[in-house]
Amino acid sequence: MKLQVAIDRVSLEEAVNLSKRLDGQVDLIEMGTSLVKDYGIEGIKQIRNALSESDLLIDLKTIDEGAYEFKQGFTFGGDVLTVMGASSIETIRACYKVSREYQKTMMIDLLEVNEEKIKELEEFEEAVFCLHHSIDKVNDWHVLETISTFQKSFPKLKRLAIAGGIDLTQAKELNQQGLIEIIVVGSHITKSKNAVEEASKFMEELKNERSN
Amino acid sequence: MKLQVAIDRVSLEEAVNLSKRLDGQVDLIEMGTSLVKDYGIEGIKQIRNALSESDLLIDLKTIDEGAYEFKQGFTFGGDVLTVMGASSIETIRACYKVSREYQKTMMIDLLEVNEEKIKELEEFEEAVFCLHHSIDKVNDWHVLETISTFQKSFPKLKRLAIAGGIDLTQAKELNQQGLIEIIVVGSHITKSKNAVEEASKFMEELKNERSN
Repeated sequence: MKLQVAIDRVSLEEAVNLSKRLDGQVDLIEMGTSLVKDYGIEGIKQIRNALSESDLLIDLKTIDEGAYEFKQGFTFGGDVLTVMGASSIETIRACYKVSREYQKTMMIDLLEVNEEKIKELEEFEEAVFCLHHSIDKVNDWHVLETISTFQKSFPKLKRLAIAGGIDLTQAKELNQQGLIEIIVVGSHITKSKNAVEEASKFMEELKNERSN
Repeated sequence: MKLQVAIDRVSLEEAVNLSKRLDGQVDLIEMGTSLVKDYGIEGIKQIRNALSESDLLIDLKTIDEGAYEFKQGFTFGGDVLTVMGASSIETIRACYKVSREYQKTMMIDLLEVNEEKIKELEEFEEAVFCLHHSIDKVNDWHVLETISTFQKSFPKLKRLAIAGGIDLTQAKELNQQGLIEIIVVGSHITKSKNAVEEASKFMEELKNERSN
């Protein structure tokens, strides 16, 4: 299982600083949507420059103009880019095509996507599918149960990620469950007193059964 | 009927230049999503500074983190901001709340939103609802028919906008139909030889029955 640390709603200076400190300590650094919309390409460039070991995921949350946004994202250094599963199938196909041309990865964000639509998304075999609990929802979320139900409903989707308030206990449980390729952790790491130390706790947990 | 001109996929310099030339000539200038994601807040500030008469719509296409994105958008000078109808209802409520606090306008983009979900959106009485044909779809789109069907299905939604490849002929027909508050025109104006002249042709058409 891989650890992706999401950086959001901070100044670009802080984001760059945090990226430098976490580089090589975690598998992926995520430039959150808030940073994309606040700092644009200039932000991508600076975060890209801060990284030499960890991969860069840019949370573009593309929902239209698939080819344009994905070309921009890969050109300026993203390794993984996100498209909304709620987009039209044409948009997702456009993103997928660009991802293959660049030999990079497309992640599909499943926020607010119904089962019928997820079925349609099975054509994107190489994509990573991210189960995502909205930051704007405050209700309880049973992560392990959500994933095992999802996996039974959509056995063809092999590459799964999970995002939304994941803490260390959940990370441990997810690792034991063994169905997830990438866990996305945000504020539980970035808002902790020492982000690098906190990230290393997650990485320690994930090492136990890491096979990919 | 009002005219909104969407600026997309150009350099910030061109966007600012075009905004200055169109300021006061059209009702709203739209900073397209591509400009938001390419230039961030710096882009918003420069386009805001270019305008003294036309309103500024920022096509944020928010789909999560509703309060954060809308606060940013209004703080840096947007008059109208967009949220995806495909977002969770919690996200749209967060955007609506911020819009009311700032006494500004929320536009809901109906890209890929089904009828059941649109019904739920009726609670946002003051919002503008934008029927939107994806740039990634190439099929025919019967604009007038789409709108009259929509209006019959959702009579409670009073403020309607339309976007997606609208040309001068369609603008004329939409004006005669009288169901739309805002038409959004992109490349048919911005990619023409003389954008200001082309925009004035649209404004001439819309004047005939303009009441709002």
